[in-house]
Amino acid sequence: MPAMPPAHPFDFDAIPDDGTDDKLREECGVFGVTGVTDAANFVALGLHALQHRGQEAGGIVSHDAAHGFNSARRFGYVRDNFTKQSLMDTLPGPLAIGHVRYSTTGSKGNTQIRDVQPFFGEFSMGGAAIAHNGNIVNADALRRELIDRGSIFQSSSDSECIIHLMARSLQRKVPERMQDALRRVEGAFSIVAMTRTKLIGVRDPLGVRPLVLGQIGDGWVLSSETCALDIIGAEFIRDVEPGEMVVIEDGEVHSHRPFAPQKSRFCIFEHVYFSRPDSILGGRSVYETRRQIGVELAREAPVEADLVCPVPDSGTPAAIGYSQESGIPYAMGIIRNQYMGRTFIEPTEQIRNMGVRLKLNVNRALIRGKRIVLVDDSVVRGTTTVKIREMLLDAGAQTVHFRIASPPTAWPCFYGVDTPDRDKLIAATMSEDEMCAHLGVDSLRFISLDGLYRAVGEAGGRDPSQPQYCDACFSGEYPITPTDRVEKGFRLKEAAE
Amino acid sequence: MPAMPPAHPFDFDAIPDDGTDDKLREECGVFGVTGVTDAANFVALGLHALQHRGQEAGGIVSHDAAHGFNSARRFGYVRDNFTKQSLMDTLPGPLAIGHVRYSTTGSKGNTQIRDVQPFFGEFSMGGAAIAHNGNIVNADALRRELIDRGSIFQSSSDSECIIHLMARSLQRKVPERMQDALRRVEGAFSIVAMTRTKLIGVRDPLGVRPLVLGQIGDGWVLSSETCALDIIGAEFIRDVEPGEMVVIEDGEVHSHRPFAPQKSRFCIFEHVYFSRPDSILGGRSVYETRRQIGVELAREAPVEADLVCPVPDSGTPAAIGYSQESGIPYAMGIIRNQYMGRTFIEPTEQIRNMGVRLKLNVNRALIRGKRIVLVDDSVVRGTTTVKIREMLLDAGAQTVHFRIASPPTAWPCFYGVDTPDRDKLIAATMSEDEMCAHLGVDSLRFISLDGLYRAVGEAGGRDPSQPQYCDACFSGEYPITPTDRVEKGFRLKEAAE
Amino acid sequence: MPAMPPAHPFDFDAIPDDGTDDKLREECGVFGVTGVTDAANFVALGLHALQHRGQEAGGIVSHDAAHGFNSARRFGYVRDNFTKQSLMDTLPGPLAIGHVRYSTTGSKGNTQIRDVQPFFGEFSMGGAAIAHNGNIVNADALRRELIDRGSIFQSSSDSECIIHLMARSLQRKVPERMQDALRRVEGAFSIVAMTRTKLIGVRDPLGVRPLVLGQIGDGWVLSSETCALDIIGAEFIRDVEPGEMVVIEDGEVHSHRPFAPQKSRFCIFEHVYFSRPDSILGGRSVYETRRQIGVELAREAPVEADLVCPVPDSGTPAAIGYSQESGIPYAMGIIRNQYMGRTFIEPTEQIRNMGVRLKLNVNRALIRGKRIVLVDDSVVRGTTTVKIREMLLDAGAQTVHFRIASPPTAWPCFYGVDTPDRDKLIAATMSEDEMCAHLGVDSLRFISLDGLYRAVGEAGGRDPSQPQYCDACFSGEYPITPTDRVEKGFRLKEAAE
Amino acid sequence: MPAMPPAHPFDFDAIPDDGTDDKLREECGVFGVTGVTDAANFVALGLHALQHRGQEAGGIVSHDAAHGFNSARRFGYVRDNFTKQSLMDTLPGPLAIGHVRYSTTGSKGNTQIRDVQPFFGEFSMGGAAIAHNGNIVNADALRRELIDRGSIFQSSSDSECIIHLMARSLQRKVPERMQDALRRVEGAFSIVAMTRTKLIGVRDPLGVRPLVLGQIGDGWVLSSETCALDIIGAEFIRDVEPGEMVVIEDGEVHSHRPFAPQKSRFCIFEHVYFSRPDSILGGRSVYETRRQIGVELAREAPVEADLVCPVPDSGTPAAIGYSQESGIPYAMGIIRNQYMGRTFIEPTEQIRNMGVRLKLNVNRALIRGKRIVLVDDSVVRGTTTVKIREMLLDAGAQTVHFRIASPPTAWPCFYGVDTPDRDKLIAATMSEDEMCAHLGVDSLRFISLDGLYRAVGEAGGRDPSQPQYCDACFSGEYPITPTDRVEKGFRLKEAAE
Repeated sequence: MPAMPPAHPFDFDAIPDDGTDDKLREECGVFGVTGVTDAANFVALGLHALQHRGQEAGGIVSHDAAHGFNSARRFGYVRDNFTKQSLMDTLPGPLAIGHVRYSTTGSKGNTQIRDVQPFFGEFSMGGAAIAHNGNIVNADALRRELIDRGSIFQSSSDSECIIHLMARSLQRKVPERMQDALRRVEGAFSIVAMTRTKLIGVRDPLGVRPLVLGQIGDGWVLSSETCALDIIGAEFIRDVEPGEMVVIEDGEVHSHRPFAPQKSRFCIFEHVYFSRPDSILGGRSVYETRRQIGVELAREAPVEADLVCPVPDSGTPAAIGYSQESGIPYAMGIIRNQYMGRTFIEPTEQIRNMGVRLKLNVNRALIRGKRIVLVDDSVVRGTTTVKIREMLLDAGAQTVHFRIASPPTAWPCFYGVDTPDRDKLIAATMSEDEMCAHLGVDSLRFISLDGLYRAVGEAGGRDPSQPQYCDACFSGEYPITPTDRVEKGFRLKEAAE
Repeated sequence: MPAMPPAHPFDFDAIPDDGTDDKLREECGVFGVTGVTDAANFVALGLHALQHRGQEAGGIVSHDAAHGFNSARRFGYVRDNFTKQSLMDTLPGPLAIGHVRYSTTGSKGNTQIRDVQPFFGEFSMGGAAIAHNGNIVNADALRRELIDRGSIFQSSSDSECIIHLMARSLQRKVPERMQDALRRVEGAFSIVAMTRTKLIGVRDPLGVRPLVLGQIGDGWVLSSETCALDIIGAEFIRDVEPGEMVVIEDGEVHSHRPFAPQKSRFCIFEHVYFSRPDSILGGRSVYETRRQIGVELAREAPVEADLVCPVPDSGTPAAIGYSQESGIPYAMGIIRNQYMGRTFIEPTEQIRNMGVRLKLNVNRALIRGKRIVLVDDSVVRGTTTVKIREMLLDAGAQTVHFRIASPPTAWPCFYGVDTPDRDKLIAATMSEDEMCAHLGVDSLRFISLDGLYRAVGEAGGRDPSQPQYCDACFSGEYPITPTDRVEKGFRLKEAAE
Repeated sequence: MPAMPPAHPFDFDAIPDDGTDDKLREECGVFGVTGVTDAANFVALGLHALQHRGQEAGGIVSHDAAHGFNSARRFGYVRDNFTKQSLMDTLPGPLAIGHVRYSTTGSKGNTQIRDVQPFFGEFSMGGAAIAHNGNIVNADALRRELIDRGSIFQSSSDSECIIHLMARSLQRKVPERMQDALRRVEGAFSIVAMTRTKLIGVRDPLGVRPLVLGQIGDGWVLSSETCALDIIGAEFIRDVEPGEMVVIEDGEVHSHRPFAPQKSRFCIFEHVYFSRPDSILGGRSVYETRRQIGVELAREAPVEADLVCPVPDSGTPAAIGYSQESGIPYAMGIIRNQYMGRTFIEPTEQIRNMGVRLKLNVNRALIRGKRIVLVDDSVVRGTTTVKIREMLLDAGAQTVHFRIASPPTAWPCFYGVDTPDRDKLIAATMSEDEMCAHLGVDSLRFISLDGLYRAVGEAGGRDPSQPQYCDACFSGEYPITPTDRVEKGFRLKEAAE
Repeated sequence: MPAMPPAHPFDFDAIPDDGTDDKLREECGVFGVTGVTDAANFVALGLHALQHRGQEAGGIVSHDAAHGFNSARRFGYVRDNFTKQSLMDTLPGPLAIGHVRYSTTGSKGNTQIRDVQPFFGEFSMGGAAIAHNGNIVNADALRRELIDRGSIFQSSSDSECIIHLMARSLQRKVPERMQDALRRVEGAFSIVAMTRTKLIGVRDPLGVRPLVLGQIGDGWVLSSETCALDIIGAEFIRDVEPGEMVVIEDGEVHSHRPFAPQKSRFCIFEHVYFSRPDSILGGRSVYETRRQIGVELAREAPVEADLVCPVPDSGTPAAIGYSQESGIPYAMGIIRNQYMGRTFIEPTEQIRNMGVRLKLNVNRALIRGKRIVLVDDSVVRGTTTVKIREMLLDAGAQTVHFRIASPPTAWPCFYGVDTPDRDKLIAATMSEDEMCAHLGVDSLRFISLDGLYRAVGEAGGRDPSQPQYCDACFSGEYPITPTDRVEKGFRLKEAAE
């Protein structure tokens, strides 16, 4: 009997490329620069370094005296769009901001170019462009109100609410207009914005999403992560602080505090997965934090085995840490095909199963007869894990012990991260034992929430009365009430229980 | 003074993507399958798994009873072309072969689609398609002779010589025609070919390039590497042997020996860099060989240091081995941006210097103040190494000790690998001390040729009287005289010395 | 000496394709249909028939119960965009409107897709899409006022003012909102608009731009011209009347009168050039009117000659009329290359001279030694005329008598037509004798304004006290003061004289 | 009941654009120039002027000292490809040839780029490029013979046979090689070819296809038609004579006679339809011939009517002639939409019926109540005629008298023209009365064969013993036996009867 083709036609585009179809997805990265020649070129480089935060689309707005505001928004990778002389020539000027996006929760796979940031609005005393990373939790209510008053929306993006609130502000200057707007807005967001002469950065009062300030020559940079400072050779100065609004003009940085002060709650998942390992978040190396998670995991969940293997590439630092703490040799038991882009069209179940094999291959000669500790950063749906375990056993692994570098992901994120509905989260519907049986591994252990907190430097673990981070995806404790979602029927923890 | 843009416009496409602009480049990968439904789908998967062997272009030829031979050749990645239903529908049938190519030495950056393999020729008693990995060293002379006799070439590819020789053979059957042709041909090559009903595989008498035989259901597979068997779920049966021609028809494999027997000389650089770490070459795991090179290197060239860091991704297995043998912790000191494709347009010197920063970033928080052992697989021009060393020192590394998992690359390869001219090879013009000074590292050590042979399993090291592998790029000893090149002025070792 | 190439490189795209680079250009065509299955397919056909009114871009909005409003806007010809199954499938529903555009006067060659109509706005009680043909003369002032009040514009199009005025109306229903908006608007415009359930058509009080009502089965159609009714097999019912607003819902047409009644002033140039010859305007056949212009011209400006030749294709009907009235045989003295699209990028002067030869060729064997009456519809800049005369004389014509089927175009149009600045209009700067000398023809005659009025059926010619048509481009008498332009410095006739 | 859409989706691309889906199609046009600067630019212009002879694809080969032969072949219009600076820069040099093609009879809609001419071959003493218009009737036999001897074909084109015959010639120089090749070839063909230094033109012994010689400055031009001389400003010198081979080098034209002399048989259908009306064929104006056909038709087939209307645009000159001879006024009763390209994908029957309405619209106001003489150049299948008659009657025409400017097309052409199989030719299966009834017109008359001969200047009509033209499509008398077709089963007239 002739072998049947694996899928007819197989569709690479439907395949997530990194074994991570059941990862949470960061929605966005932002970058802005002022005081340099051809700012848009720097922004393109910065966005390229932030591409892991969003691959669906990107946009850049620049301003120069001769042409005013210039804008280009494109679907696809930064490197495939913002590298063409002909396009970059349309974005002159010393001041520019940019944005990469994954997609909004609501319209995945259906984004239109008009939804791609930055957004631009012309006001009576000037204009402004704005881009954000995160989510405005009362955006639906604000939008309804604005439409009632005659505003016309061009997109489905939260950012546009801010622009309309600014347009209706009675203040004359853009920073004051923005402060007016921000006072109406609830949520987790880091904003970069620009007027003709000013570069503006804002973090929400809890500082859930990252935003850093850097310096390059006489110019200034705002970026979601420090890795994007490195690529342009900028120096990391400091984090923009939670609740801070920085206004940069004529080479000077002015700090404003539009919000009432609160204790910060930075997103702990940025450490676990979202950010690049070469970034520094809140003063901590992401790589070192992840390695330390592996160390903690080895302490919490030791096992006898021959090899520690990561699910590449997101599990690698934790696997190194596990190996170093446990003394079990580290090895590349799974090899990644480098010729897959991150892809985002939802695959069919059949293709998804095929999918992992397109991206990952077991190093058969290495694995055969071995007891494997398999380390991954997180488990969301669990579909990929099942497949990888099968591939390992097919290749002759003796046993597979699964260690996860984060606690069970049991709650959706409403702060700018794309999460499946709660009933799709394996950890929301199964106990750890049930998951172990379902995934078919010989043992399964997640790091504890306290272990995770220790790894991020909180020696005493999590303070349950006043948690140091936002860990809603693990704990179900939402520091900002997701108003719009609750209105649409989402049941908070107390209600759910 | 405003900071100047890094390059105006910077051109991602001109940037090699993996810190390896001074790597040797494999030119091709081949794959064929027969006895399956929709063979072209399998070939597309196989070529995707072999994409590291050639990213410039790919082609597939299939045969089915209704349409005869079907062909599609495209520039770009397999995943961007051979994934579309509309294209794959034009390639029906149970028998297909395919090819991915880097480019020919002579026409880099100037390939035309007519140069993309497989080639097809119609003969008086049938037709055949053919694709090869490697190089025919007397191709120029054969081409001149054939043109004199009235053959018209459609491409600049060596493969076409074989097709014309076959067309002029007085034999009636394709396998006999091919044997006629092969007897005229000198060089290092692995061939997959097909007629209406037969799948054919050939390795040159020395077996310089790899070719393996696999089985899938009742069907058979030929592939450059075993990793491409894994992706379609085929079972690895054996290597096609040096000098062997296999003819597969009606589910049976027939072995022929068109050449006089010789002792084999497999390319040792396949172990060092070309092949994927999850492949098995000549019965040996590539990953394990590379790790073992690191072990040998740690023995040959120990150093006191804080961290062992690979240049990702090609230096990773050797770095793991070095770390394990030396006890110095392994760490990800350099992080790779995953959103670069392998790119092949030659960058300008200026862009090349910028280039590395687009692909690689130093993990600054980790590196600062540390003594680093930096492990790479090879050094060809040395340009990238200089840049990486600068980035490490900029990030605050205390010392950088460079360890190379291959001997100095001092001679060009003429057997299907793209190599710079000899005077561009840093190891051809400098001693190891001079290189160390030029590269600006604190110490520089290459593995010895004997060490490399030990790592590939030759416990007694290299047999100088009869080397077990082709190592011409290190030793200058060419097992097959590169006739065309010598005619064009290349000076062999004896002549050069 | 080798002949130099005609232009290196010659650039077809820079070449107007019909000898009419010095024509006035209609800016837009509109079409809407309700009460049919898959309305967007009808709209695509209608827009294809109206393509002569605008070739730069087109857009369609449809509404269906399942998806709400659906929109697609594209640069290029209707036939190249709105013919793809994949695109048309995104535009379901029984109600749709569409638009083809040339470009706005202000941003020629610089249109962005966001400027392409129809525009869509969501209101508190529903939404509406709108498209128009014509020009709002107080759009700049309205825009400033709206921005001051916090509206954010997404385009530079006049239509968007109407949408914002509607959004801010305190009326609850869309037709009432539109009446509110229309009362603020001055200009010459024909509008098609739609809500979820209503198709709406409006003509300005003077009825400068055309709009007709048709019926197809139980459904209704609005179109700029009757030729677009023919293509879908719809029956022509009547013109929408000047100042009328028709609201079509549930198969019934309701007529409203939002404006104070005025005597109509239909654009006479629609008869001369803009409309298709197979359309019926104000009850008159365009083709017959044009033929009659030729008849009048032969009476007003007879000449002895051998052949009457049109400048194809716009001069053809008048040439036929001239031939029939004069008895001089009609002949195709100039042949048009059918493989030119209408092109709109401004050619350089050098290319423009080459240009005509790319589109038109003299029928040399016919012309040689002949006395030619050359008939064209209008002369704007006169550049093409010079070139055609040269080509005729090169081909051996004995004499060339030029007859123009319209009076001298001496004033720009501000009612939705793209016109050069006044100093570029040859008739604004030269007398008829000077033009004759400048164009180098043996005689030059324009039809008189009275002759033109007679040809459109006004037996008594033009009524100077109360002209029956808008003829501002000939007379300088603007029935609607072009407020924005005057503000920007345009000098009206009295002021100019 | 809602009106159903005209077609879901309607597919403009499937629609022939000029009411001529049942026309015969010329397959090719050729053009070459030498002795000018940037010859390829001239060739592009010439091919643009010859676009009516083939719209599917085009190619240009040039030669310059620095780069040797340069080639570009593209699908689509000349104006869409050979107008780009970037492409034309790849075609430098003072000598170039080019080709536009419709498609080969055998592979319609399935052409691959490798089938697009010119073809290039490298010989032992040089190379040559070649392009032809026409057909080699023994190409199949030649191809079999060449393959038997070891030649490998890259295309399905007849031209390639000539290149292979040249490659195998024992002559040293290209012109002598070509004469060797031509002696083996039978058929109707006009060839342009080039070596490094020579421009070569050949017409077959009967001179079936046109080829003219022109001069531009010191340079020389070869072209299928004179209209392509006009566009570049070249002077028409003379026809290349039947059986002549001109070799142009160093500014001089040398004439050779490789064939035995025969009486010429130029294709009479070039006068009827293929050539452009502004071309001069065999010393006769095509336009004037067509007008004269209308005159003859009015004499042979008079009728009482109100208007003479052409089917645009191919029926126009004959309609003018008919009107002038009969005194019945000429009018544009059918208007053509200018925004259709010639399209070549075979439409479905349903779409074909819709099709005409997309391209043509009846001028309803003119036609209503009138007796119409409708003039077309030819009828092949008759499908379009039925539809046009319907449209005229729908529009209220009183009677429709159909007059055809050619005799009934009852036989396929095998000399380079795309014709349907004989059983699809309406005139092959029906008498004139049957056709009249089938087409539903009030009367139907074709011009007689003698009338056609009179119109092309043969005052005595056709000489049946030795016809002055090739009129096989009307008479079934094939001057060159279509060997390959007969072998495939085509029955010649004697056999058929």
